[in-house]
Amino acid sequence: MNQQPVRRGRGRRPAAEVRTGVLEAAADLLFAEGMKAVTFERVAAAAGSSKMTLYKWWPSAGALAAEAYFARSRPVLAFPDTGDIRADLTTQLTAFVRLLTEGGAGPVIAGLIGTAQTDPDLAAAFRRDYSGPRRDLAVEALDRAQQRGQLRADLDVALLVDQLWGACYHRLLVLDAPLDEAFAVALVNNALDGAAT
Amino acid sequence: MNQQPVRRGRGRRPAAEVRTGVLEAAADLLFAEGMKAVTFERVAAAAGSSKMTLYKWWPSAGALAAEAYFARSRPVLAFPDTGDIRADLTTQLTAFVRLLTEGGAGPVIAGLIGTAQTDPDLAAAFRRDYSGPRRDLAVEALDRAQQRGQLRADLDVALLVDQLWGACYHRLLVLDAPLDEAFAVALVNNALDGAAT
Repeated sequence: MNQQPVRRGRGRRPAAEVRTGVLEAAADLLFAEGMKAVTFERVAAAAGSSKMTLYKWWPSAGALAAEAYFARSRPVLAFPDTGDIRADLTTQLTAFVRLLTEGGAGPVIAGLIGTAQTDPDLAAAFRRDYSGPRRDLAVEALDRAQQRGQLRADLDVALLVDQLWGACYHRLLVLDAPLDEAFAVALVNNALDGAAT
Repeated sequence: MNQQPVRRGRGRRPAAEVRTGVLEAAADLLFAEGMKAVTFERVAAAAGSSKMTLYKWWPSAGALAAEAYFARSRPVLAFPDTGDIRADLTTQLTAFVRLLTEGGAGPVIAGLIGTAQTDPDLAAAFRRDYSGPRRDLAVEALDRAQQRGQLRADLDVALLVDQLWGACYHRLLVLDAPLDEAFAVALVNNALDGAAT
């Protein structure tokens, strides 16, 4: 991962800049045409890079697609911390659902997770660059809420992450049932207040 | 779907029997070797049927794999109704987690859902034969619990299904985090009692 493309003279660009350009080109292809469009050949052509550079940096086109998705979605999915966990979870889950629906990320992430089931490089990249860090961010926010006394002291907060985001993925991946902002709001309230009388 | 294989004389088997044999052969291949082993060619050979018969009955090998998985897992996933929704959900979710882990169905269902993201025939079969009927069974049980006053009257019970089963799928598909019976038990209690103080 430390190798840099060798270029000479005035045309040479810093590796970080090349990398950013490649990820942007890959994300454009991913959101416009889906997983199948993200090949080393097409991304290299779109980014004005060499395929050799891409082979050095990513073990598979799937791994490149995963990192491109992560880079593109990160700014949208910042986790707010206003001190009110119900409001913050609602903001976060609503933004996630909006990204999946209006933002066009639904088919993209479904394709990434789908391909990850048979592409170990993509699965590893997905966990390392996306699902792992996102779970950590959520767990940290929930830990702070627990310390503020807003969540039960005996709660396993990692499990709450599965209940909230897992419900959205369930609608997206398994059942193709409607996924909208009202669902996100009801989901948060239900997880916090419980279903039992 | 009403076509029957044409056989003559003493060797002829009823279509329903042939179909059951094909599904059993497909499920054996699926659980032993995964999605990729379920081809029309191998299933036909294992079941002693003709490929032509399989082509008539299933639009794709993925659709055949989905139905085989469904036929095999149905008996394990019967939904109990003892009148105590907490006990019944715990029994159901624990059985589901056990099927995914010790039962060896985890990689199978991950492969099915993964492939479904790019195989519309498999996705349709999965919804029609598995996720749809299973959601209906769960919703019926939750409706009865709501009528008995065990669940809040304003609860959208379909959403509770996403929170419970979606959490298990999240661990299976997205995060590769530990999935065990203790998780299933905590999940049910958390969904019923709520995370908030």
